[in-house]
Amino acid sequence: MSIKTANQTTLERLTEGQPVLVDCRPAAQAVGLAERTVLHAGPPLAWERACATVQSAICCAIRYEGWAPDDATAADLVQNGDVRIGPCHHQAAVGPMTGIVTPSMPVFVVENRVHGNRAHVTINEGLGKVLRFGANDDAVIERLRWLAREAGPILGAAIRTAGGIDLRALMAQALRMGDDMHQRNVAASALLARRLLGPLARTGADPGALGRVADFLGANDQFFLNLAMAAGKALTDPCRGMADSTLVVAMTRNGTDFGIRVAGLGDRWFTAPVEMPQGLYFPGFTAADANPDMGDSAIVETIGLGAFAMAASPSVVRFVGAGGFADAVR
Amino acid sequence: MSIKTANQTTLERLTEGQPVLVDCRPAAQAVGLAERTVLHAGPPLAWERACATVQSAICCAIRYEGWAPDDATAADLVQNGDVRIGPCHHQAAVGPMTGIVTPSMPVFVVENRVHGNRAHVTINEGLGKVLRFGANDDAVIERLRWLAREAGPILGAAIRTAGGIDLRALMAQALRMGDDMHQRNVAASALLARRLLGPLARTGADPGALGRVADFLGANDQFFLNLAMAAGKALTDPCRGMADSTLVVAMTRNGTDFGIRVAGLGDRWFTAPVEMPQGLYFPGFTAADANPDMGDSAIVETIGLGAFAMAASPSVVRFVGAGGFADAVR
Repeated sequence: MSIKTANQTTLERLTEGQPVLVDCRPAAQAVGLAERTVLHAGPPLAWERACATVQSAICCAIRYEGWAPDDATAADLVQNGDVRIGPCHHQAAVGPMTGIVTPSMPVFVVENRVHGNRAHVTINEGLGKVLRFGANDDAVIERLRWLAREAGPILGAAIRTAGGIDLRALMAQALRMGDDMHQRNVAASALLARRLLGPLARTGADPGALGRVADFLGANDQFFLNLAMAAGKALTDPCRGMADSTLVVAMTRNGTDFGIRVAGLGDRWFTAPVEMPQGLYFPGFTAADANPDMGDSAIVETIGLGAFAMAASPSVVRFVGAGGFADAVR
Repeated sequence: MSIKTANQTTLERLTEGQPVLVDCRPAAQAVGLAERTVLHAGPPLAWERACATVQSAICCAIRYEGWAPDDATAADLVQNGDVRIGPCHHQAAVGPMTGIVTPSMPVFVVENRVHGNRAHVTINEGLGKVLRFGANDDAVIERLRWLAREAGPILGAAIRTAGGIDLRALMAQALRMGDDMHQRNVAASALLARRLLGPLARTGADPGALGRVADFLGANDQFFLNLAMAAGKALTDPCRGMADSTLVVAMTRNGTDFGIRVAGLGDRWFTAPVEMPQGLYFPGFTAADANPDMGDSAIVETIGLGAFAMAASPSVVRFVGAGGFADAVR
């Protein structure tokens, strides 16, 4: 088959997909994630090559699961092979920033109704000290435990009650409301909250618990990002393995390497040292304080959103100062 | 005082306002609306001059209140003066289309925190057969009774729990998400739903009732319109009576007359025959089937939104085919 024909077929396969949010349940059940396994963002990564941020998040996740009482023991478990680490992308999952997933963490389940495959992603933790940025203390762990104990089960019940939520329609509407779907997800987050309002009410959960989950969902403008990522993963996975196609079907970073996968080249990763983003810093901080780029969130760009939709998102353009695809090429 | 100075002062008074949604409770309590009173949109209107649509809605409202068993008796009550009709605008209220308000109907209460005045508006009934379009049957009445019995009390409890919702901030955000705040309120409606998610959950209402209210709130893209109108009324009322100012502080229609009020001319109405809108019709219908314009919703234009913000709302412009203020002047 010619590359052009293969790419056309693969692009159709990508664009015909129908990502539907169908569930939220622990990764052990949803992904079949094995005990003593920690998933991370990006291409495969040996512990020794991981940056401090990713190592910190892995240790925190091991403490959260109760597999080790402290970071030193946690690091030993990984180095001895008693805890395995591996990419989210190898387990039909994606994760923002450090991208950590462990078996007890609740994950959203997004099903591609056209191809039958599923993709998974954790619940966005919100702002402040969070695991995805490598924070590692008791507050981080307490929030993760609350997500597993209270938020995950209630969200899962609501989503199942809703009979699935069509993410394609929701994302299309949100893009017309100024979201780019990576930096800005306020429209999608609000539309999702509105969509979940009735199903959440019908869970019959205790009003206090329901109130906490609702506040959490309602206060996070980036809540939808993780779902956009899972939608991206659900859409791109059926394109992997399409012979002769040069379409890039994954772009991701782990803080050390940037990796891509190409449709016609199956499960193979092509990696290079990850770049340092040209970003905006809080006052007093510079690139010297920063960590190289990380996270599976570039799956959003892989399906043509995020940076590629940024020109349609005036507030992002004004904040980040970037333009459209043509500017990126220049 | 010069007109220019008076207008500057009045405009400042308008734009410094802070509309906050503080409650939802029956009009009898919130507005002090007297028994056997029906409010309607627009300037004052004698029953004989009312169009069939407004007469139909008034009769339906009287039957809803149980003051008459049928339309003929209802019409007699109005003609005999046993039921009084009057403008919403005279009772610190506004209403969309026919704009009907009766004492048992729950109304949102919007307080202008800078000037201390309050404005009121009914809960948007959604689509289908609704009182605001003059529909008059048992389904309309059943929905109104459900709003009074279940939706109003739950929404009121949630809003009071929230400690008030800043409509100015919410409207500013929604305008940047493509709403014009008259034809299109999907962003504001979704942001409001998200804001009410936690407070609704905390009402402790029965899950079935909460689910019905949440579905109702979540499925109506124009839910916020009524609140934008109440915000407009809360902002403009403090400008009425500002000596020497020529600022228009109310524009409204009752299906027969178009009326305006001018800041420097107090409570006086200036009216003219209402125009027939140049609109889009469902297939098979033309202007010959239409009713002249009606509703207090032009209060949204009075504060510079709606038609005046339409140029910033691409989806409305594409649908209605209109442009900005300059086009309107042409």
